Amino acid sequence: MDAKKEAGRQLVLLERGAEELIPRGELLAKLERSIETGVPLRVKLGIDPTSNAVHLGHMVPYGKLRQFQDLGHQAVLIIGDYTASIGDPTGRNAERPALTMEQVRENAAGYTEQIFRIVDREKAEVRWQSEWYESLPLSETLRLAGAFSLAQLLAHETFRARYEQGVRVGVHELFYPVLQAWDSVVVGADVELGGMDQKFNILAGRDLQRDRGMEIQCAMLMPLLPGLDGRKMSKSFGNDIPILLDPAEQFARLMSISDECMEPYRRLVLLDSPEDCRAAAARVASGENPMRLKLELAERIVGRFGGAARAQRSREEWERRFSRKEAPSEIPVFTCAGSLDMCAILKQSGLTASASEARRLVGEGAVYAGEERITDTGYRIDAAAAESEGVVVRIGRRRFVRVVFASAIEAERPE
Amino acid sequence: MDAKKEAGRQLVLLERGAEELIPRGELLAKLERSIETGVPLRVKLGIDPTSNAVHLGHMVPYGKLRQFQDLGHQAVLIIGDYTASIGDPTGRNAERPALTMEQVRENAAGYTEQIFRIVDREKAEVRWQSEWYESLPLSETLRLAGAFSLAQLLAHETFRARYEQGVRVGVHELFYPVLQAWDSVVVGADVELGGMDQKFNILAGRDLQRDRGMEIQCAMLMPLLPGLDGRKMSKSFGNDIPILLDPAEQFARLMSISDECMEPYRRLVLLDSPEDCRAAAARVASGENPMRLKLELAERIVGRFGGAARAQRSREEWERRFSRKEAPSEIPVFTCAGSLDMCAILKQSGLTASASEARRLVGEGAVYAGEERITDTGYRIDAAAAESEGVVVRIGRRRFVRVVFASAIEAERPE
Repeated sequence: MDAKKEAGRQLVLLERGAEELIPRGELLAKLERSIETGVPLRVKLGIDPTSNAVHLGHMVPYGKLRQFQDLGHQAVLIIGDYTASIGDPTGRNAERPALTMEQVRENAAGYTEQIFRIVDREKAEVRWQSEWYESLPLSETLRLAGAFSLAQLLAHETFRARYEQGVRVGVHELFYPVLQAWDSVVVGADVELGGMDQKFNILAGRDLQRDRGMEIQCAMLMPLLPGLDGRKMSKSFGNDIPILLDPAEQFARLMSISDECMEPYRRLVLLDSPEDCRAAAARVASGENPMRLKLELAERIVGRFGGAARAQRSREEWERRFSRKEAPSEIPVFTCAGSLDMCAILKQSGLTASASEARRLVGEGAVYAGEERITDTGYRIDAAAAESEGVVVRIGRRRFVRVVFASAIEAERPE
Repeated sequence: MDAKKEAGRQLVLLERGAEELIPRGELLAKLERSIETGVPLRVKLGIDPTSNAVHLGHMVPYGKLRQFQDLGHQAVLIIGDYTASIGDPTGRNAERPALTMEQVRENAAGYTEQIFRIVDREKAEVRWQSEWYESLPLSETLRLAGAFSLAQLLAHETFRARYEQGVRVGVHELFYPVLQAWDSVVVGADVELGGMDQKFNILAGRDLQRDRGMEIQCAMLMPLLPGLDGRKMSKSFGNDIPILLDPAEQFARLMSISDECMEPYRRLVLLDSPEDCRAAAARVASGENPMRLKLELAERIVGRFGGAARAQRSREEWERRFSRKEAPSEIPVFTCAGSLDMCAILKQSGLTASASEARRLVGEGAVYAGEERITDTGYRIDAAAAESEGVVVRIGRRRFVRVVFASAIEAERPE
């Protein structure tokens, strides 16, 4: 095998989706050497188990890690049980309450269970920070801290902004990048993967390795995945797609992303080649309905995390519910004793939490009776006119109830 | 015994020489309670054995500690083997090279040997930081660091100034006040003593004790002692009086302090009462030669560190050398083969390191031949006129050489 050629091939694959690669030439050289010597690269990725809520956005670097695995390299997962107890200051404006080690361990178990849907568990080296930090003496901690200057850490956007705005920065928080950097020394990382928000911390690892006279890791930074509303995907924005969500619901959420978001999902979640991305765009340009592409995309993504069979069932379910204008197969039934206005139906059936929510939704035009959009809160379904199977009332595309009338049931009863 | 009255009496003694007492009312209350309960106050003083060069300026807080001991309180000496390895950032513009634990231990042994000339060794509790820091886990270190904010530590003059001037502040240096503060929690200090430059660190101890719901220590801050040139005493300024210096040399250096400095030496080194200080000033005002008072002061101070007998011998030696215009008993002899100018004599005799230094000193009027001040660098001692024992040439008051002429020696030779 021509090592140069093979390294070039690998680099093309690995660069897919990456926003920054620091520096490209070093990674190419590392790949070449790895191919020549048969020694896999050690590719580090840190997990901060501050919670066990994993969503599609979190998965982007893990997908990249899996790609390294598939190319024969060594995945090194660092469970940040110490950094999690500090809480990564990246992108937030206040200290987090410190987690107990107990909470961290519980979160870590739940978290890794989810990422092993993508990362090959058998071929991953899993290391806990406690392995080297549990017995780190204070003298070593101080030596480690002394490798960084205050000015260097205050160059970190988050620290500086908070300091300048008078928002408290606990001195312990300065240790977040320091510990993450030391991890790279300990595990001898060749590459560290992370989101763009990890750039500062990953570069700190390069500094520390250089100080130690070690070979220096490359930084591969992945962009943030947009959420359902186009902002970055985040649980706190409520625009996320959790990995543990029911596949049918994942499918439905994926179908609700904007057409423009298909490209980043393709590139970042599926690691499609630029050619494939261009081919998809060409299909739309030539007049094909974007929904067809979105159906394919959603099926592939759900399949990636839940398997092909579930993905197919989810797609069928979705098409039955929305695309073919059919109601989903199992709709709860609400039986009316007599004629009720729409607000009362929505509230009493449990479709809304309150009458005021019901009124608001009707006002917004989100409520349908059969195919008809209801805009009058006083609207009543004509019980006599209703067929015996009742009328399907829905809010938006995903909240349904089948309204049947007690009198209609009676009328049907055999005499 | 009336506790209130006795506490008041103690406070008057303890306030002597102190520049700041934070807060006075709290110390009074602590003293009262101590007298009532018979439980001595725990008075903390940290030693940073970054070197074993102890001078009179360092001794000021130890003199105060001895006073607490004499009043029945408990001296608690903290050997800062961890803080010494950081190096106190106070009053310096750069990081210090870190000391090894070995060096720190050696320095500590030399240092304590000197302070026990003042502090009562039998009644002092000596604690090494390593006792609690050697096994401090990283998780605790982080918790401790988190008790302080970055803004709080950057309020520390030295850190802020260096940060703003772009001079490197190592992140480990932030731990200096944190560790010193934690020491106060560990030993349960009621009072912490220190120089004015320790104010920030000692107040940090109050913060941490408050956080911990403990009774809070008082801060007693001693002023800095002026050195021989009036600037603060410091080895690096070369204006210091080391404790281990030969008593006769200590005596001579003390005699060279300015008349204005007698008052702070009296107040800070001897802890004289304000009445005694006023009485001394009155003697000068009434026409007494300040040199007599300086002789008394020097004898008392040398006696404090070296004992009364040595102090008296030193005084007698000094008076023989300078005061009675006699040359000291042992003067090195420099034999001239022929007539030399003054610069050549100074250089060849080794009294100056170079001819240019010799020229400078003559120009400054610091050079004497016998009783005559020499201002002409070309000046030659008349060999014929010189008596057989030669001429004493001196620079200032303490550098001497006896110049004899080979011809004079020959002339004396018995024929």
